[in-house]
Amino acid sequence: MTSIDNFSKLCVHTQTTKPWTIEECISHFSAAGIKGISIWRHLLEGKDLKSIKAMLDAHQMEVVSLVRGGFFPAVDAEQRDLALEDNRLAIDQAAALGAPLVVLVCGADPRQSLEISRQQIQKGITALIPHAQNNGVKLAIEPLHPMYAGDKSALVSLGQANDICEAIASLWVGIAIDVYHLWWDNELKNEIIRCGKNKNILAFHVCDWRVPTIDFLTDRGLMGEGCIPIRQIRMWLEEAGFDGYNEVEVFSERLWAQDQKLYLEDIKKSYLNYT
Amino acid sequence: MTSIDNFSKLCVHTQTTKPWTIEECISHFSAAGIKGISIWRHLLEGKDLKSIKAMLDAHQMEVVSLVRGGFFPAVDAEQRDLALEDNRLAIDQAAALGAPLVVLVCGADPRQSLEISRQQIQKGITALIPHAQNNGVKLAIEPLHPMYAGDKSALVSLGQANDICEAIASLWVGIAIDVYHLWWDNELKNEIIRCGKNKNILAFHVCDWRVPTIDFLTDRGLMGEGCIPIRQIRMWLEEAGFDGYNEVEVFSERLWAQDQKLYLEDIKKSYLNYT
Repeated sequence: MTSIDNFSKLCVHTQTTKPWTIEECISHFSAAGIKGISIWRHLLEGKDLKSIKAMLDAHQMEVVSLVRGGFFPAVDAEQRDLALEDNRLAIDQAAALGAPLVVLVCGADPRQSLEISRQQIQKGITALIPHAQNNGVKLAIEPLHPMYAGDKSALVSLGQANDICEAIASLWVGIAIDVYHLWWDNELKNEIIRCGKNKNILAFHVCDWRVPTIDFLTDRGLMGEGCIPIRQIRMWLEEAGFDGYNEVEVFSERLWAQDQKLYLEDIKKSYLNYT
Repeated sequence: MTSIDNFSKLCVHTQTTKPWTIEECISHFSAAGIKGISIWRHLLEGKDLKSIKAMLDAHQMEVVSLVRGGFFPAVDAEQRDLALEDNRLAIDQAAALGAPLVVLVCGADPRQSLEISRQQIQKGITALIPHAQNNGVKLAIEPLHPMYAGDKSALVSLGQANDICEAIASLWVGIAIDVYHLWWDNELKNEIIRCGKNKNILAFHVCDWRVPTIDFLTDRGLMGEGCIPIRQIRMWLEEAGFDGYNEVEVFSERLWAQDQKLYLEDIKKSYLNYT
């Protein structure tokens, strides 16, 4: 398998270095030779997006994605409408920052079946397409790990994401593939090939699954710290035609507690050695 | 959907009332009108199995299963041999207690691929068949939730368990279906029907998935406390021809902290109302 020998396709999510502000992420990523950044929306609260965009441009940073929209399903129709409003805002923010896509964590409501939640997801995404198209921003469905099926995503496999994406059949809707959520699936390679054939791979997220994992949200590992065949999965995506950024998305109390500048150097080493 | 109106098919796992010894489980389950018991092996350490069997018989308790064998995969061949030895011991213990089956948590070794682990699982189970047959004890493969793929089970769906079970094709090998592990899978109904057609459903475990779930092992809910469509899944099993016990298998620090006799009454209510 082919290793990576430079940082031209390295992107880091702002949430990976959670202690930093958006400005700190931009300046430190740039200083470290990292060209891609995926921006989490909570960092934009109270900020002037034009200034952030100017700072990104001054540092020649490419915004790979805005994270995140979604959370479509709800028993309550009014709540579903509020979710659409928030997703339109996310699209506006993405456009303002020059982000080509918004990542969707699609949601689930434990008071109803997964099937109904999936229908509401499809309906919600479909309703957003005109606004996405008008703003030139794509929507990337991110299937999550089945351990989040209770409340975060009724879409828990790449097969399901492919199904819904092909049913929607819009150039403005595709898929974000995250190794953390999907590595356990023995259909993963086939579904990646299928996703690529339909030109639906919009993003690729990497991190690792630690053994044991002790927290449902914030115990991810840096690439190489766990058991996911990350390089194998990256090569399947490349076989399937993907040539975008490899986005490092790690949530870890353990790693957030470290000096974030030193941590960024560890991320770069881990990227070359294990991605 | 049809509810249950009596306790004739109620079985409780000893681990559900973890604070109790095996003797306390037998006497309290029996006093509560519960006829089925699934026995966890650690409770047998240092015990005389003939005395336990006599106590079970005196209380007219039916042993539904012995829990658990498995953990076949390992990079190290010697470790795989040790696992086989332990599984033979489990079969001996099951025979001594009159348990018709041993539940297998099949294992995974994070240092090798899931595919290799699955091959080792198939080889391990196949190696046990003569001993199982000689003792009249069946082996029930239990596919676990994908959140355990790192170390506890390379089998993470009923489809995979069906594949391996059909490949082994022995009357002594079948499957234990647990709602906690499998509820998220949109192929679940189809795979239950497939499993039933091949006469491979050996056991059915119930509990619930709490939202949010805060621990990977010990935050299960009692039926009705979470979002699993338990009754729906039970009816799929019955459609598929299963007519065995419904086994309540709940691991919960929260519920273990309660008075276990009162908790047993809650289990019975939850069983009638939500199973």
